[in-house]
Amino acid sequence: MNDTFSARGSILIAGVTTIDGSTADIAIDETGTIVAIGDDARGAIDADIIIDGSERLAIPGLVNTHTHAAMSLLRGYADDMLLQDWLSQKIWPLEAHLSGDDVYAGTRLACLEMIRSGTVAFNDMYFFMDRAAAAVDEMGLKATLAYGFIDLGMEDKRETEIRATEALVRRIASLNNPRIRAAVGPHSVYTVSLAGLSWCAGFAKEQNIGIHVHLSETGKEVTDCLAQYGKRPAHLLDDCGCLTTRTVAAHCCWLDESECRLLGQRGVHASHNPASNMKLAVNRAMPCHWLKQYGAGLTLGTDGCSSNNNLDLFEEMKFAALLQKFAWNSPTLLPAGEVFTMATAGGARALGTGPGTLAVGAPADIALLDTRAVCNTPLFHADSNIVYACNGGAVRTVLCQGRILMHEREVPGEEEIIREAAAAAHALVERAGDEG
Amino acid sequence: MNDTFSARGSILIAGVTTIDGSTADIAIDETGTIVAIGDDARGAIDADIIIDGSERLAIPGLVNTHTHAAMSLLRGYADDMLLQDWLSQKIWPLEAHLSGDDVYAGTRLACLEMIRSGTVAFNDMYFFMDRAAAAVDEMGLKATLAYGFIDLGMEDKRETEIRATEALVRRIASLNNPRIRAAVGPHSVYTVSLAGLSWCAGFAKEQNIGIHVHLSETGKEVTDCLAQYGKRPAHLLDDCGCLTTRTVAAHCCWLDESECRLLGQRGVHASHNPASNMKLAVNRAMPCHWLKQYGAGLTLGTDGCSSNNNLDLFEEMKFAALLQKFAWNSPTLLPAGEVFTMATAGGARALGTGPGTLAVGAPADIALLDTRAVCNTPLFHADSNIVYACNGGAVRTVLCQGRILMHEREVPGEEEIIREAAAAAHALVERAGDEG
Repeated sequence: MNDTFSARGSILIAGVTTIDGSTADIAIDETGTIVAIGDDARGAIDADIIIDGSERLAIPGLVNTHTHAAMSLLRGYADDMLLQDWLSQKIWPLEAHLSGDDVYAGTRLACLEMIRSGTVAFNDMYFFMDRAAAAVDEMGLKATLAYGFIDLGMEDKRETEIRATEALVRRIASLNNPRIRAAVGPHSVYTVSLAGLSWCAGFAKEQNIGIHVHLSETGKEVTDCLAQYGKRPAHLLDDCGCLTTRTVAAHCCWLDESECRLLGQRGVHASHNPASNMKLAVNRAMPCHWLKQYGAGLTLGTDGCSSNNNLDLFEEMKFAALLQKFAWNSPTLLPAGEVFTMATAGGARALGTGPGTLAVGAPADIALLDTRAVCNTPLFHADSNIVYACNGGAVRTVLCQGRILMHEREVPGEEEIIREAAAAAHALVERAGDEG
Repeated sequence: MNDTFSARGSILIAGVTTIDGSTADIAIDETGTIVAIGDDARGAIDADIIIDGSERLAIPGLVNTHTHAAMSLLRGYADDMLLQDWLSQKIWPLEAHLSGDDVYAGTRLACLEMIRSGTVAFNDMYFFMDRAAAAVDEMGLKATLAYGFIDLGMEDKRETEIRATEALVRRIASLNNPRIRAAVGPHSVYTVSLAGLSWCAGFAKEQNIGIHVHLSETGKEVTDCLAQYGKRPAHLLDDCGCLTTRTVAAHCCWLDESECRLLGQRGVHASHNPASNMKLAVNRAMPCHWLKQYGAGLTLGTDGCSSNNNLDLFEEMKFAALLQKFAWNSPTLLPAGEVFTMATAGGARALGTGPGTLAVGAPADIALLDTRAVCNTPLFHADSNIVYACNGGAVRTVLCQGRILMHEREVPGEEEIIREAAAAAHALVERAGDEG
């Protein structure tokens, strides 16, 4: 297996356990597509690489629908503060010193962390996104990248943001990497003017790309929006054309039932970020039951590492299932199977990376878990162990579009990525003149 | 390091990072006691074993103050159900078929899981506790073991429970293992009569041992207690003499302020079990702020694997810090340093296993974490990374009373423990005639 990481060719995953408890072979062709699953898969290809699937559980690679990946550099820099103090005293002063090199180093660290916890695709919003794209290009994941558009109601700033958004979309097109897509990133109703929101919607439509927006994270966002515009945030976004079948709305904590219905009608994908919401004490959990009832897309995100503080979607699945039960007061809410679907098929549909299932014709976005790990002992119901018992450490091997990104917990270059990210983070804090 | 696990002798942990960011040597003598920390520690002993502490962060071993360890066999057997359905349709029917061999296999699996996630001591309540003691004896952790005393108001059952409790205390005394202690385990105010509670309190006092009890887990427990006895559960326990400085009260979700004051006055240790409380939707989080204000002991527990579903106290620390913020509505509540103290010094004081800190004279109960793990990159504040970013997988090496239980993630015999636990779990379900 010396060529595990460099080889591009067909792959057979032999004798692997699937989520329903059966054993199967999975055949993957040179384009990274699953071409056969089952007893006859072995004959479907002349495999260049064979991965031993014994003692392994194959699941679709996870999809993280709300990240600020480069904020991995801010992990543990400041915690346990009031939201406004935390932003104004800690996060914004540090971000003011952030460079493109930092974003590159931080995004590589984030990609490494996601690979190590079974995530194959993510939906990112931040700055210096050309450098984020370079990091994703190297690391081999799939990503949808948006420049965080914030005009604060100022026309000159709006022009700057428009130019930055247009430049990123051009840049990503020039990469010609099918794994990397652009989206438009109007930050939120409280940081972007109506003119800005409308421009974002129009540009996304013109370019045929997605929209990534924060929506109703805090109660204050709703009351401020009602005071300024006389309507709730989802309705305001809809007025500006920002709610589409290619919109991912992050947080969605304070949506009322009418807004959930609206998101369902528009085919919007909601990104549940339970750990971040709990850490920042937003005091309400995304109403998954209403969003499900009205047909909105349900997906899962970690948010950035300064408010979580990791990118492990296994942990996030547990937080989601448990927070829904606790906050909406029933242990039957968001069962394991549903939250697993959010983290796989739900996310994949939202980002357009495939069906998010292990099926013939689907891209080979696959994570192999250790069935002999303590967290999988006993193994009565795989989805229960995945959601409630395991963390990302149970993942042994990760494939993205048929390329092996991690095998037996080895990711090429990881030591250098960690060393350079640590150095960048500490240098950033030094430049900002604050030891945290 | 071939003799790492078998050797009994003095140990030097050389050049390890401590929680305050400094580097130190830690010297441990043959009795498993820390005899020196710092630059001069190297000279304090003639070390039989030297552990390289570079790229390692030394923390006190974690203490889990509420477990039903053998329920690791029920991991993932049934989830996402209403509490009463879950107990009556799934858990109790299975437990009716539980054997002493099952408890031995399940407790060994639980010990393995705790070692692998940095836990050195736990407070357990279940059945066939002589077999649990045998498992702990072998595995090398510290434990306080209580037989779950449930008389349901019936006098003949009370006699049976008294005899079982007395037998366990005798059995543990006969083991003559200073790592293993007995406690009395009156299950709760809704499963034990006043006569039973009073006997437990008297017997604990006579034997000079601790008490392990469930307290105010659900709102129903409180309303039923008020209806039956005209007082809230903590006051009822106090009437029976069950609240002492050696009492660990698990859950404590529905305590009111007067009960928190009472626990503080009596010096009781409260065990916060956030993941279990969220999963079972008990709808209120333990009021840590009141318990702290009135001086009660604050500790952390995972509960059993059928309602969590793992024993990883790193994950539990994050759940605790985040649930307190979310449920009591402020991001400044239970900061990282405080929850870390709950999981270490708070638990150690509750179980009497030492100060729960790395100090000269303290037992060498130590976990070494990987400082180059992604979750520790960057490393601005060790307590933040420990609580918010890492899971138990960051632990590389664990010592309990100076004995090395895991080194570089290797635990002797782990494959056999996992194999036998899996076999026991599936055989149990077969005996119970239910495929889950």
